[in-house]
Amino acid sequence: MSDDRHRLAAPEHRLERLVFFSDAVFAIAITLLVIEIHAPHLPFAATPQAHLAALQHLYPEFFGFVVSFFVVGAFWAGHHRAFALAEHWHDRLILANLTMLLAIAAMPFFTAYLSANAGARVPVLLYAGWMLAAALLNMHLQRIVTTPPVVSEAASSDAVRMVRIRGAAVVAGAATALVACAVAPWPATGLMALMTMPFWRRLFGR
Amino acid sequence: MSDDRHRLAAPEHRLERLVFFSDAVFAIAITLLVIEIHAPHLPFAATPQAHLAALQHLYPEFFGFVVSFFVVGAFWAGHHRAFALAEHWHDRLILANLTMLLAIAAMPFFTAYLSANAGARVPVLLYAGWMLAAALLNMHLQRIVTTPPVVSEAASSDAVRMVRIRGAAVVAGAATALVACAVAPWPATGLMALMTMPFWRRLFGR
Amino acid sequence: MSDDRHRLAAPEHRLERLVFFSDAVFAIAITLLVIEIHAPHLPFAATPQAHLAALQHLYPEFFGFVVSFFVVGAFWAGHHRAFALAEHWHDRLILANLTMLLAIAAMPFFTAYLSANAGARVPVLLYAGWMLAAALLNMHLQRIVTTPPVVSEAASSDAVRMVRIRGAAVVAGAATALVACAVAPWPATGLMALMTMPFWRRLFGR
Amino acid sequence: MSDDRHRLAAPEHRLERLVFFSDAVFAIAITLLVIEIHAPHLPFAATPQAHLAALQHLYPEFFGFVVSFFVVGAFWAGHHRAFALAEHWHDRLILANLTMLLAIAAMPFFTAYLSANAGARVPVLLYAGWMLAAALLNMHLQRIVTTPPVVSEAASSDAVRMVRIRGAAVVAGAATALVACAVAPWPATGLMALMTMPFWRRLFGR
Repeated sequence: MSDDRHRLAAPEHRLERLVFFSDAVFAIAITLLVIEIHAPHLPFAATPQAHLAALQHLYPEFFGFVVSFFVVGAFWAGHHRAFALAEHWHDRLILANLTMLLAIAAMPFFTAYLSANAGARVPVLLYAGWMLAAALLNMHLQRIVTTPPVVSEAASSDAVRMVRIRGAAVVAGAATALVACAVAPWPATGLMALMTMPFWRRLFGR
Repeated sequence: MSDDRHRLAAPEHRLERLVFFSDAVFAIAITLLVIEIHAPHLPFAATPQAHLAALQHLYPEFFGFVVSFFVVGAFWAGHHRAFALAEHWHDRLILANLTMLLAIAAMPFFTAYLSANAGARVPVLLYAGWMLAAALLNMHLQRIVTTPPVVSEAASSDAVRMVRIRGAAVVAGAATALVACAVAPWPATGLMALMTMPFWRRLFGR
Repeated sequence: MSDDRHRLAAPEHRLERLVFFSDAVFAIAITLLVIEIHAPHLPFAATPQAHLAALQHLYPEFFGFVVSFFVVGAFWAGHHRAFALAEHWHDRLILANLTMLLAIAAMPFFTAYLSANAGARVPVLLYAGWMLAAALLNMHLQRIVTTPPVVSEAASSDAVRMVRIRGAAVVAGAATALVACAVAPWPATGLMALMTMPFWRRLFGR
Repeated sequence: MSDDRHRLAAPEHRLERLVFFSDAVFAIAITLLVIEIHAPHLPFAATPQAHLAALQHLYPEFFGFVVSFFVVGAFWAGHHRAFALAEHWHDRLILANLTMLLAIAAMPFFTAYLSANAGARVPVLLYAGWMLAAALLNMHLQRIVTTPPVVSEAASSDAVRMVRIRGAAVVAGAATALVACAVAPWPATGLMALMTMPFWRRLFGR
């Protein structure tokens, strides 16, 4: 379908709707994470100690919830930053955005699998690997958004560069986490390597 | 209720709100799909092989998730394209849009039924049949959107034609899938016939 | 809090955000309805007949889903119509809107209770009674929306009257359904009385 | 990242998207609360008395649903009020907003834990304590929103003061509830102390 046919509809409105739909998917995925933390149901006469012990058993669920909340939040922030530079519509955005959203929408599953099997290496590797895939799909989308015909003529090359550096830093962070999860004695601690992202950002920013 | 009464409110605002509500329903339906993939919970000492085997058993769930994600995504994209040509409000939009959304909102159920009964023919036929119904409701809605009084005067007849061709191609694709699912030796493979949509698009586009 | 303090922020933007938040709640409530239809999981060798029988058992779930989908949809349409006449912000909107949304957000529970106990009278009466409460809260909200200081000066008295008549018709329809459910031999058939709404609309419109 | 780089994108658009994303998270969290009320499923021949008894057992679930609905609603209203005074974008908003949303998104878990263990003190204390944390994160966010560079130049100091007073009143109310829950003979009644908020508002408003 040629671009011209679509120019008749205000391009910023079409962009807005895509962004809006994406925001809703991000918001639902980030909020659904909590339903994987199952509230303990204790007998009426349970002591406070029993309650605290039950909560302690939920540690992996809380860990997964918080990590994934910030992971999905970081992807949302990246989407937000990238589309702040967009001005023109292109049909290619639909598929690139949809595949990235598929990766995000699946995060609650990978989080639940991780939380339900604390200590196992496969779930952590899968989590980090999936996040790496999401980061690559995200980078692909950001490239479309920050390149003509989509990017705004008013977008400075600095701003474009910044978005791409951040996108690449997410990929590097996920890859580092994948390696760390493969070698860490307690697999889930490898996810802490996601915190290397600011470092990669600074490195790539040179 | 006569149209005039409603003209007092900016028609583009009323359209926007309808589109917004629809986007939210699409987004929730597409993101809820993942909660049908149940994370395996293995004993602490489970081997990596046991984990991989458990994941392999989830193949039908992943298949259903991915197919339905793109099916709902395609309906969203069609809605998006059609409403980019709309400019005026009409009360008929409410019911036509709502019935189409009902079909979309039910997709997580049909997906779950399909995934939970891999190899059975009834769930696949029901899935394809429901999608065919959704496609017909969608075509009905798109006709309203791309006809006066709703359609924008600035919409080219080419753009209108394109939206309708795409709508008809979704119907044809779903019908083909229904037939394929009825005859395929392994029923779910019939859903692959959904990929004939670009072919129908080109055929109808002549 | 005096109104003046809030005039500094564009009132239409504050209204928009309230409407937006409400749309999201409506959309989630309407889409969550489907997760109460539990997909049957049959043994691999199940015959098509067994599948059809299992689906037939879901009849009450489908019934509840469809009825509630249109009930929530009707409330959304009423909200949409009423706020198309609003132009000014008032803090009273927050609480009136929130209590109405509480009634809507609880609909998936009342639907699930209804569907899980087909043939019992208490769940149907509770469903109709709750809907009546929602209709009254809705009428209260619509009164605020269509009265100064909230209503637009450009709103015709005809349009205001129409919104109120529709609101009253929803109350009358829900009350009729409540009575019908109390006396109908098969309780859920009483919900069919919700279809008297167009009749009440015409009656009140005289 | 310097602010200037971001000025190229309309700041109000970036604010809008943040607000939009937040609204969606609020809306989902508030609507998910209902899925913790499990619909009773009684045998076909159950008497109305049996149904009423089953509903009575759901009292703690309803209590939790209603309390949390208004708690989340109050946080939404505060967010709404605060951002009505915002005009400029700043990157600091992303993290401050995200951590506050994390606290909101987790409310369904704390509500479910509270409802499932009626009469126990630990769940109530945890609920009130978490709400206190959310109120503090909220106050932190509101401070950013109502301070340069984010706050609108047109925002009166009165309006700013009002938002901050309300934010502090939520903190004081949650703290009061926490103390009340620690000493109340029936723990959950301590949550009634949340209703002291208007009192704190008036006190701080002097």
